[in-house]
Amino acid sequence: MKHGIRHLYIPGPTNVPERVRRAMNVPMEDQRAPDFPALSLPLFEDLKRVFKMREGRVFMYPSSGTGAWEAAIQNTLARGDRVLMSRFGQFSHLWVDMAQRLGLDVEAIDVEWGAGVPLDAYERAIAADRAHAIRAVFVTHNETATGVTSDVAGVRRLLDAHQHPALIFVDGVSSIASIDFRQDEWGVDLAVAGSQKGFMLPAGLSFLAVSEKALAASRDNRPKMERTYFAFADMITHNDNGFFPYTPPTQFFHGLRVALDMLFEEGLENVFARHHRLAEGVRRGVAAWGLKLQAVAPQWHSDTVSAIRVPEGVDANAVIRTAYERYDTSLGGGLAQLSGKVFRIGHLGDLNAAMCLTALGVAEMALADAGARIEPGSGVAAAQAWYRDAAAEGSALMQHAAE
Amino acid sequence: MKHGIRHLYIPGPTNVPERVRRAMNVPMEDQRAPDFPALSLPLFEDLKRVFKMREGRVFMYPSSGTGAWEAAIQNTLARGDRVLMSRFGQFSHLWVDMAQRLGLDVEAIDVEWGAGVPLDAYERAIAADRAHAIRAVFVTHNETATGVTSDVAGVRRLLDAHQHPALIFVDGVSSIASIDFRQDEWGVDLAVAGSQKGFMLPAGLSFLAVSEKALAASRDNRPKMERTYFAFADMITHNDNGFFPYTPPTQFFHGLRVALDMLFEEGLENVFARHHRLAEGVRRGVAAWGLKLQAVAPQWHSDTVSAIRVPEGVDANAVIRTAYERYDTSLGGGLAQLSGKVFRIGHLGDLNAAMCLTALGVAEMALADAGARIEPGSGVAAAQAWYRDAAAEGSALMQHAAE
Amino acid sequence: MKHGIRHLYIPGPTNVPERVRRAMNVPMEDQRAPDFPALSLPLFEDLKRVFKMREGRVFMYPSSGTGAWEAAIQNTLARGDRVLMSRFGQFSHLWVDMAQRLGLDVEAIDVEWGAGVPLDAYERAIAADRAHAIRAVFVTHNETATGVTSDVAGVRRLLDAHQHPALIFVDGVSSIASIDFRQDEWGVDLAVAGSQKGFMLPAGLSFLAVSEKALAASRDNRPKMERTYFAFADMITHNDNGFFPYTPPTQFFHGLRVALDMLFEEGLENVFARHHRLAEGVRRGVAAWGLKLQAVAPQWHSDTVSAIRVPEGVDANAVIRTAYERYDTSLGGGLAQLSGKVFRIGHLGDLNAAMCLTALGVAEMALADAGARIEPGSGVAAAQAWYRDAAAEGSALMQHAAE
Amino acid sequence: MKHGIRHLYIPGPTNVPERVRRAMNVPMEDQRAPDFPALSLPLFEDLKRVFKMREGRVFMYPSSGTGAWEAAIQNTLARGDRVLMSRFGQFSHLWVDMAQRLGLDVEAIDVEWGAGVPLDAYERAIAADRAHAIRAVFVTHNETATGVTSDVAGVRRLLDAHQHPALIFVDGVSSIASIDFRQDEWGVDLAVAGSQKGFMLPAGLSFLAVSEKALAASRDNRPKMERTYFAFADMITHNDNGFFPYTPPTQFFHGLRVALDMLFEEGLENVFARHHRLAEGVRRGVAAWGLKLQAVAPQWHSDTVSAIRVPEGVDANAVIRTAYERYDTSLGGGLAQLSGKVFRIGHLGDLNAAMCLTALGVAEMALADAGARIEPGSGVAAAQAWYRDAAAEGSALMQHAAE
Repeated sequence: MKHGIRHLYIPGPTNVPERVRRAMNVPMEDQRAPDFPALSLPLFEDLKRVFKMREGRVFMYPSSGTGAWEAAIQNTLARGDRVLMSRFGQFSHLWVDMAQRLGLDVEAIDVEWGAGVPLDAYERAIAADRAHAIRAVFVTHNETATGVTSDVAGVRRLLDAHQHPALIFVDGVSSIASIDFRQDEWGVDLAVAGSQKGFMLPAGLSFLAVSEKALAASRDNRPKMERTYFAFADMITHNDNGFFPYTPPTQFFHGLRVALDMLFEEGLENVFARHHRLAEGVRRGVAAWGLKLQAVAPQWHSDTVSAIRVPEGVDANAVIRTAYERYDTSLGGGLAQLSGKVFRIGHLGDLNAAMCLTALGVAEMALADAGARIEPGSGVAAAQAWYRDAAAEGSALMQHAAE
Repeated sequence: MKHGIRHLYIPGPTNVPERVRRAMNVPMEDQRAPDFPALSLPLFEDLKRVFKMREGRVFMYPSSGTGAWEAAIQNTLARGDRVLMSRFGQFSHLWVDMAQRLGLDVEAIDVEWGAGVPLDAYERAIAADRAHAIRAVFVTHNETATGVTSDVAGVRRLLDAHQHPALIFVDGVSSIASIDFRQDEWGVDLAVAGSQKGFMLPAGLSFLAVSEKALAASRDNRPKMERTYFAFADMITHNDNGFFPYTPPTQFFHGLRVALDMLFEEGLENVFARHHRLAEGVRRGVAAWGLKLQAVAPQWHSDTVSAIRVPEGVDANAVIRTAYERYDTSLGGGLAQLSGKVFRIGHLGDLNAAMCLTALGVAEMALADAGARIEPGSGVAAAQAWYRDAAAEGSALMQHAAE
Repeated sequence: MKHGIRHLYIPGPTNVPERVRRAMNVPMEDQRAPDFPALSLPLFEDLKRVFKMREGRVFMYPSSGTGAWEAAIQNTLARGDRVLMSRFGQFSHLWVDMAQRLGLDVEAIDVEWGAGVPLDAYERAIAADRAHAIRAVFVTHNETATGVTSDVAGVRRLLDAHQHPALIFVDGVSSIASIDFRQDEWGVDLAVAGSQKGFMLPAGLSFLAVSEKALAASRDNRPKMERTYFAFADMITHNDNGFFPYTPPTQFFHGLRVALDMLFEEGLENVFARHHRLAEGVRRGVAAWGLKLQAVAPQWHSDTVSAIRVPEGVDANAVIRTAYERYDTSLGGGLAQLSGKVFRIGHLGDLNAAMCLTALGVAEMALADAGARIEPGSGVAAAQAWYRDAAAEGSALMQHAAE
Repeated sequence: MKHGIRHLYIPGPTNVPERVRRAMNVPMEDQRAPDFPALSLPLFEDLKRVFKMREGRVFMYPSSGTGAWEAAIQNTLARGDRVLMSRFGQFSHLWVDMAQRLGLDVEAIDVEWGAGVPLDAYERAIAADRAHAIRAVFVTHNETATGVTSDVAGVRRLLDAHQHPALIFVDGVSSIASIDFRQDEWGVDLAVAGSQKGFMLPAGLSFLAVSEKALAASRDNRPKMERTYFAFADMITHNDNGFFPYTPPTQFFHGLRVALDMLFEEGLENVFARHHRLAEGVRRGVAAWGLKLQAVAPQWHSDTVSAIRVPEGVDANAVIRTAYERYDTSLGGGLAQLSGKVFRIGHLGDLNAAMCLTALGVAEMALADAGARIEPGSGVAAAQAWYRDAAAEGSALMQHAAE
């Protein structure tokens, strides 16, 4: 029989804050009531602040992030359209798979799992595309399977350098609201996010931020893919008045209201700094164990999830299973080719340093149980040193501010 | 400032039972945990009991019912496929619209709003289709906009009579789990339901029950529409093991567990009988007011929602607005051509007789405020008489059973 | 099997607002944390606003109102002290019983059940007490068993008229926060309230408002009753810093925070006006039935609870039982000598007009089932007329204010 | 701004399990409803199982444990009665204080803070009391301030040995439901427990288990203290039918129902074993730091709370403050003479090994911040080793059982 906190350190769904859970525990309500827009309209505006956009709009779909991936494609592209993508983890792999199945002509560049979007290869493809056949370039901002963050701004720069008009699609499911993201500044056209990561909500709602350029593309005369559930046009007609073309999950909106309040109360830049601080503690713990991250170089290190390679001869799945069964803790597994090779610690959302210590402390026990020779307590100690410094600094800063 | 219960008598979302609300107020969890299938697998089985099916399977999508409408079409039909549909209310209208936009060749039969699926016209079309060009026949089991229930079994009978192989699609969003529905017996191939009606859950989850015949159609060699989010194949691969192809909204599953328990504890036939009993009280109240239902004859009366025609010169929208603003009560509005002509009382889900009295009592006040000349208390009195008899009978039955 | 809302129209516990329920659903916390006083200290101040007092203080006890009754006595009186009380319902009866068992020398004046505090008789007793032997005069502000409100200010006036120094004790459990109460202006010394009535919280917390004079009495050299759990002195020492002498039920404080916010957002005078408006609708319904209230004259009518006399030959307990078993509704029973003679409708706390219609509509059914000959719908109709007028007036006022 | 779990490792209130929180989030209900006893009566019976008693009864008071302390005394003793007590921590000190203030003639034996009930001194006092003037002997089963568990059975043995008829009072607030306790076997007469410790509920409800002998004492002709709120007689009259003499906090009963289910599902002996296992891990961590417990010898070690002495020159209050402010963690403070000398880790209730690692990991950071020279990670590592062995053993046992 299980007791106590079910420790959750997967890269999503993440721990839902008490405030958000409370806010979502509401009775159902009339989604056509005259005062309903007073709830819904500010959400659209505030979501734009999170995506750092002034132009364009954000859609909210009752769906997983996968649904928003599909929405982005269906509304702006047509079967046979050429797109540039890259594959370096299970989620970028799945996005390529979707694009292919939806009938796009995909140029998919494979990269070793552990690196991110290959700017060089992208540049070559863009440079070669004088005819501007490439309609869209896809960027997985944060590959959840490998703990790798890519350079979205870099993709924008190379498109600009070549005056290439392709749309930029971004998968920001495990980055947006946790890692800096700038829709306008980076010229992103379609950015996908999900409720269950940095937005600190349960799963079931997805967000799609769309630039004016992409909105125009969705409206232009070129035929697009058939669509109704995810169709921008129906959403826009209703959203403009604060309503929805079909019954929306209103309980999520109450939770989102509080989640956005929390993000703004903390300040987005502070949210990103906190994620970096907590992630760095986990990475120091991993280093102290003598283990490697799947991310092959610091430039790729993700501040929301770390994929940790277990030593040769150790089964990462045994680590995960032991953590779950013996120590009441969910760690993330290795997906596809990484199964058994890595376990993942999700360090995003509503999180603090003590929680990271818990994750490291349990991982040490589970690694040892699985036969890894790591020094017990070493990862915890390394993280403690880092978190102590960070807390002392934060404390000093606050004292300074109060003086 | 508002106080007390927000009375909710729209035809969905419906009142979520306390037991279900409690069950859904859970922390997030690992949707890939080894014990997760112990939660998910029985849900699939128990959903089949609600749809009254032994063959085939039920999919659960993170989407509204509209999403499941689309899923049904995308997985079994191809652009250009001929389908037979009928239109007699806003929701059957929207389904036709979706079918057209997804590229189907729709034969849409228009019926006055107030009647239901036209069996005669359907029979003519089927009889004429010797070549079996019609791939699917669509049936809106319960038209939520007009309060009209149609005869699904009748559609099956006429297809059988003509040995026509078309698939039967059913929109059961506002009927299934409230009104009798029999997937197997009626030979339904694709039946759509939503969480926020008879299933007594918040909005955000849809159900699609699929017959073996429809599953075979989704797998056969004929090309189908492009799809990934709603693709059966991906769902099946993961569902068979109790998992999902993308992050599922696990909180809904805990709520669904309890909602299904409640349905089975009461017994499906008793659930249907209760809906009939409560609906009949509302209809008697309407009759006592001297008003008419939008449903033009008793054969069409819906046990989940009544659309009530206001007298000439009265604005139904004023009734609804007054009920909301002055009496803290949400009634359903008239949609499209019925705007201003009807208001609707939803009487489905977690409901009892006293709640129906509340709805009638408020409707009387709001009607009077809007200028309708109805005898105050008359509708309540008529409903009371009916509910008293029903309760006395129920009480006598229970006493008898206890002896 | 039961469905839908459990309609609760007893005079407490009352319906807890959703906002309050959400606020109370918190994890436990450290009641000695440095930031805990930021939660607790404002509660003490805001409670004083509800009691309308600037001097003195309010204690919060983890107890029912009965505990606060005892606290009031133990801290300011000694065994053998003479007190003046009156008895006109089950709760005033029980308070006399407590006073006697705690060893006070009680002069208890019996009044017919249906009237309230007998100012004449009190005046005679006070006038006769030249020696000021009477230490305290007890006033049941609102007798919950009979639906009778008494004149607290009148007691103050007669004490003043006779320059009598007795303390005034008030049982305001079912009045304070629902009916006007003025600790300072009326010179009340010890006023008892409970969480589960006008404060709209669950049962389990009691409030005791204490004047400076009563605080002084608790500290003076006269021996008092032995006490520790309810001792003022221990409470004061800790409360002054925002803490408590024993583990407080912190979840209640979060609920109280929201309940107080709601009272102030509405405005106390508006709260009282709303209670009067809702109560009057219920009384009009009762009059339309041709039934009598237990309160023998309008001056005694309580705005928080109505005790309704059933016709001769009808068993009020059958009414209550039927309402509960057949119609999912809790009405209040007749207590002690009123058992079987009255049923009670609680109309206080988080309530609106539609809820009062529900209570009346169910009462009509249950009365009829119990054999009462009342015109079905008549009470509902009378209340509707009253509530419609009140709502139209409120609506006009708001429109006026907006112009 | 704070994020993530508020880590709570004080010795009460403890972490309320999700199941219990959900169960308590109920609307208010009629505490006089005919089906209410179906909820309440089994609670009384099941509480007796937790206290391990077949005779006597358990009372539930809306109060803190301090209230139940007072209830025990008021109902069975009279002013001037002689009682034997001992003092070795803040809570045993407060109980002596209460007894004195309630007018008992207290023989209070002082023991160094760190040991427990002095059986030798008790025996001398009992042996000397040939006249049986001592009416009651008080035993603080678990002194929460020092982390010391005393030998209740030993007190029973010495009373038996001297054929002394005194009642045995036990303070089991921080032991019962976590550490073995046997009302019948140990001949305990009045045992006090609170909701917010091993019972895993919020604060606000206390339990008092009373033997037949003590019930008889409460009824006999000897005058007792005046009482009404806590009076056994009123409680018994109502409890026998499943009701209460004043409005009970019904939400607690729903939570208690689940808490008791959880205790029995796990099995009381397994609950005790788990507490021992988790406590031992904490103690090994403390030993690895080179620090001492306040409990002066292993015989006194408490399995629910450890009071840890900080090194000379370190301020324990700084440790606690830092843990709270920097690391979002509540540790228990040193009370009275132990202020600044110890901090406490509560390890009781709904707890698992990973949570104990969190507590130790944070304590290490806070100790270091406060200037203690301890090896970072050392306590965590020692606890990990212990928990890994325990988990492996448990895992092996389960596998064995499954074979």
